[in-house]
Amino acid sequence: MIRKPYLLFLGDAPDQLAAKVARGVGDWRPDDVVGQLRLADCQADLDIEDITIAEAVSAGAKTMVIGVANRGGVISETWKPAMRKALEAGMDLASGLHNYLQDEPDLLAVAEACGRQLHDVRKVTQSYPIANGKPRSGKRCLAVGTDVSVGKMYASLALQRELASRNVPATFRATGQTGILIEGEGVPLDAVVADFMAGSIEQLSPANDTDHWDLIEGQGSLFHASYSGVTLALIHGSQPDALILCHEPTRESMRGLPGYKLPSLDELREVALSMARMVNPRCQVIGISINTSDLSSDEADRYVKETAAVMELPTTDPIRYGVCELADALLDPANFSS
Amino acid sequence: MIRKPYLLFLGDAPDQLAAKVARGVGDWRPDDVVGQLRLADCQADLDIEDITIAEAVSAGAKTMVIGVANRGGVISETWKPAMRKALEAGMDLASGLHNYLQDEPDLLAVAEACGRQLHDVRKVTQSYPIANGKPRSGKRCLAVGTDVSVGKMYASLALQRELASRNVPATFRATGQTGILIEGEGVPLDAVVADFMAGSIEQLSPANDTDHWDLIEGQGSLFHASYSGVTLALIHGSQPDALILCHEPTRESMRGLPGYKLPSLDELREVALSMARMVNPRCQVIGISINTSDLSSDEADRYVKETAAVMELPTTDPIRYGVCELADALLDPANFSS
Repeated sequence: MIRKPYLLFLGDAPDQLAAKVARGVGDWRPDDVVGQLRLADCQADLDIEDITIAEAVSAGAKTMVIGVANRGGVISETWKPAMRKALEAGMDLASGLHNYLQDEPDLLAVAEACGRQLHDVRKVTQSYPIANGKPRSGKRCLAVGTDVSVGKMYASLALQRELASRNVPATFRATGQTGILIEGEGVPLDAVVADFMAGSIEQLSPANDTDHWDLIEGQGSLFHASYSGVTLALIHGSQPDALILCHEPTRESMRGLPGYKLPSLDELREVALSMARMVNPRCQVIGISINTSDLSSDEADRYVKETAAVMELPTTDPIRYGVCELADALLDPANFSS
Repeated sequence: MIRKPYLLFLGDAPDQLAAKVARGVGDWRPDDVVGQLRLADCQADLDIEDITIAEAVSAGAKTMVIGVANRGGVISETWKPAMRKALEAGMDLASGLHNYLQDEPDLLAVAEACGRQLHDVRKVTQSYPIANGKPRSGKRCLAVGTDVSVGKMYASLALQRELASRNVPATFRATGQTGILIEGEGVPLDAVVADFMAGSIEQLSPANDTDHWDLIEGQGSLFHASYSGVTLALIHGSQPDALILCHEPTRESMRGLPGYKLPSLDELREVALSMARMVNPRCQVIGISINTSDLSSDEADRYVKETAAVMELPTTDPIRYGVCELADALLDPANFSS
């Protein structure tokens, strides 16, 4: 578990996109963030307070999160002075980069000397069991997509926030790098060994109070040739009671798979539901989350309304319209009575 | 790649079942085996010649295969003298045990001193790419099952042998421990990291001559909560042209999952085919392989005939009746014309 609160390190990010991990943490866990630290030539800005390492420690920061990505995920030498200083000041470091903090001898030496932790959230640091498939108490909602990167994590985070605001016990269960940094813990599913994928998800969403909801972060897509196995393990390990279908309407082909058309939301519903019902026969699709960021306001309104009508399901863009309807559907016993 | 021919080491196997890995290699690659080596109290017997390590080396053996399993997959101390002697005599060792040969300091020291290899076929020893989903030339047949351990490997091996006997170019592509020992190479899929599962299978069955068949060993089951993700990655990495459905008719529940009923062959056909067609729209189910080892001869005859009639597909038990009909179906262009 990564200690909070965080100082978000944006480094020398050349644009906002390069700091999207920091943005994710800042957007979804503002109360866990004491400020941002930017180097002189940083072109990203989370519109939160710029503070020094000393100020961050004074404000209680326990971990500096590397919220910036380089091409290739490498750890830039220009970041190192700040990283060493953060360790020396008493903070841990956490990173979702492809290259590991723990593989940098200089950082490792400082961390060991200072008794600090280096969290590489892409790295599997524990062993997981083989899934046993046993039903467990508590409720689970999983986001599934027509493709990768269609807003599954945002949908789950938005639902967790909405449920919490209604005093419904709800936990976001992270399965990817940004999600783990946001939540402070989780399973880096794409790095887990094949045999233990579903078991890692059973462990991530254990038995709970009967009215408690786990909002489980989706990964990949059942229709995506590169990652579909990860997705199916996630469905079978989750034993979801509810599925949210996620879609990005402007994409011409599956991400990274030229020539592969995206499935329709109806195809996704049919396949995902039949897979989920193998492990939880009561599973229901309760709504749809559309990433309309590449549509105009009018186009988004029209697309969401049409989708709701055609699919006969509550449909929204979490960022544009919130997730009230999805939360209503999740909490409506009538949706789970069949 | 594991060097052949093999000496099959049965150790102190307490019964035939404990030597089933050796039996698999002996059954399917008799020409690659120079004999068996058994310790004094061995209760297993492959009905092949008992030879010494010196005789094996004289006969050209290049690798001693550890064809015996202990409870827990450990490497028994009682096997060590023979293992060291084999290394010293110039053979490599190959093992599919859970514990690795390479983790035994004494074996490692002897192997290094003698310049010999220790092959742990459960261990991933190379990096695999992320699947790209691109179509590739050549034909591929994948076995899928209603459950794990229903005879998928045997079906594929039998088909490879049958096609080879008809001078059809065909390669068995191993994805599990016994299969890798049989073939001498392959991908230990259940040990591959999640993100690279499908990519490892693309690499295992590369572009080939248009009339060449890869017979790809199946793993897990789309319906098995513990391993379904591995199966889907295998389907999407294989881009199969043909599927063989595999089933064991006496099983009361999914192996390791009490309370989970096996799906019907019809359910398997529908789900597996829809998944396979995401990556290869021309994919066809060409036949059914039944493991009737727990049925009487009459029961087996009846079950296979009834299944063929109900499913309207060539149906056989490869061990009991051979796979002529399945090979015919695989080679019939009419099955792939739609």
